[in-house]
Amino acid sequence: MPSAKLSNIRIILRHPTHPGNIVAAARAMKTMDVSQLYLVNPKRFPDRQADDRSAGAQDILQGATLCTSLDEALIGTSFAAGITARRRDLAAEMYTLREGVAKIMAIAHEGQVALVFGTEISGLTNAELEKCQILVTIPTNPVYSSLNLAAAVQLATYELRMAGDTKVVETIADERPARLEELERFYIELEKTLIAVNFLDENNPRRLMARLRRLFARALLQEEEVKIWRGILNAIQRKVD
Amino acid sequence: MPSAKLSNIRIILRHPTHPGNIVAAARAMKTMDVSQLYLVNPKRFPDRQADDRSAGAQDILQGATLCTSLDEALIGTSFAAGITARRRDLAAEMYTLREGVAKIMAIAHEGQVALVFGTEISGLTNAELEKCQILVTIPTNPVYSSLNLAAAVQLATYELRMAGDTKVVETIADERPARLEELERFYIELEKTLIAVNFLDENNPRRLMARLRRLFARALLQEEEVKIWRGILNAIQRKVD
Repeated sequence: MPSAKLSNIRIILRHPTHPGNIVAAARAMKTMDVSQLYLVNPKRFPDRQADDRSAGAQDILQGATLCTSLDEALIGTSFAAGITARRRDLAAEMYTLREGVAKIMAIAHEGQVALVFGTEISGLTNAELEKCQILVTIPTNPVYSSLNLAAAVQLATYELRMAGDTKVVETIADERPARLEELERFYIELEKTLIAVNFLDENNPRRLMARLRRLFARALLQEEEVKIWRGILNAIQRKVD
Repeated sequence: MPSAKLSNIRIILRHPTHPGNIVAAARAMKTMDVSQLYLVNPKRFPDRQADDRSAGAQDILQGATLCTSLDEALIGTSFAAGITARRRDLAAEMYTLREGVAKIMAIAHEGQVALVFGTEISGLTNAELEKCQILVTIPTNPVYSSLNLAAAVQLATYELRMAGDTKVVETIADERPARLEELERFYIELEKTLIAVNFLDENNPRRLMARLRRLFARALLQEEEVKIWRGILNAIQRKVD
């Protein structure tokens, strides 16, 4: 039986350029019974020739959701992990695939979770990675780390499947993790408030905001907590205006 | 640095029919720094066209050992694991990939160990599997278990790498977690601020404060982050007074 949690996993491919890679990724997903595929601005999709090689993974390709931005692909998710080959100087914490998957599966118990893969060539941009709560790197040979897209999807979905049966660890009883769009609205209000109280340099808020995002990402904010914080920010803004 | 144990691992491909699959397997091996490739009666090898796609894994292909039988490929090994998609009615014990790799790596500490992969189509024959001390199966979707050769090699070498390396990723920023007394001062200032902006009911702040404490506790605040928050609270209080 497929794990209920695996059905809450979204594989997002951002700007995939080769149709063959989309098909290979879909086949890799299918071998591990992960079926939700999101494509952000694929260069060619669907592609008749590539489809001929889909060998049983047609259902995943036909059910794929086409999006025009990463934001759109993330709507409805509670958590996003960006797959990256190297350490970046960014907001999110960096985990190995196995560590990251443990976090992902704990959340997938209750809500939608996204794994975001970049193009075959350049991976994800910093702006895209900043939308992810954690960064995940697949341990590889340091002198030859060039996993192709399908291989990365294969390894990630394998780890998801392996982790699917393990017990959930750190969930909070009866609560729902905040969705990413709720989180983004909170961060926007937080930034506004910090500028209003002259704490944040309006011209260069990014570094500090990145730092604060990292903190809240570690805590895995719940829906209820985001509401509390929106209330706090409202109260401050009313006082300050 | 490559693990010493990984250099004792032999990847044996038995009767590979498509040159492209040999190249893809070599690339998968290279990403995990497993370099010993043995080919038993490959249909076409070397293959100029396939070599063009080897993208940095030429050294593995050029160093590959050609054999005419599985017995020949196993000479010098202490242990062999046969990779198979399904349960066979055979003498050898069956393990999942992760369990099998744990056994393999324990032995690779002292001697040569082989992982034996079958052809793309039919896998290994019973006669071949009987030469293996253990059988290893890669957990997959029961209704779509057709991993291609490169994918199977990728997953196996990934697990070998994970089992062989203790330190697989650089550690996260060496920061110092906040001390409890620093945290308590922060919570006191947070409570004051929330009362000052009329968010907190002065007579019954406990429930909400407990909630906020729980959030920050989950994040395991760092010393630097507590400083940032003290700064934010100061800025708000100055504006509000």
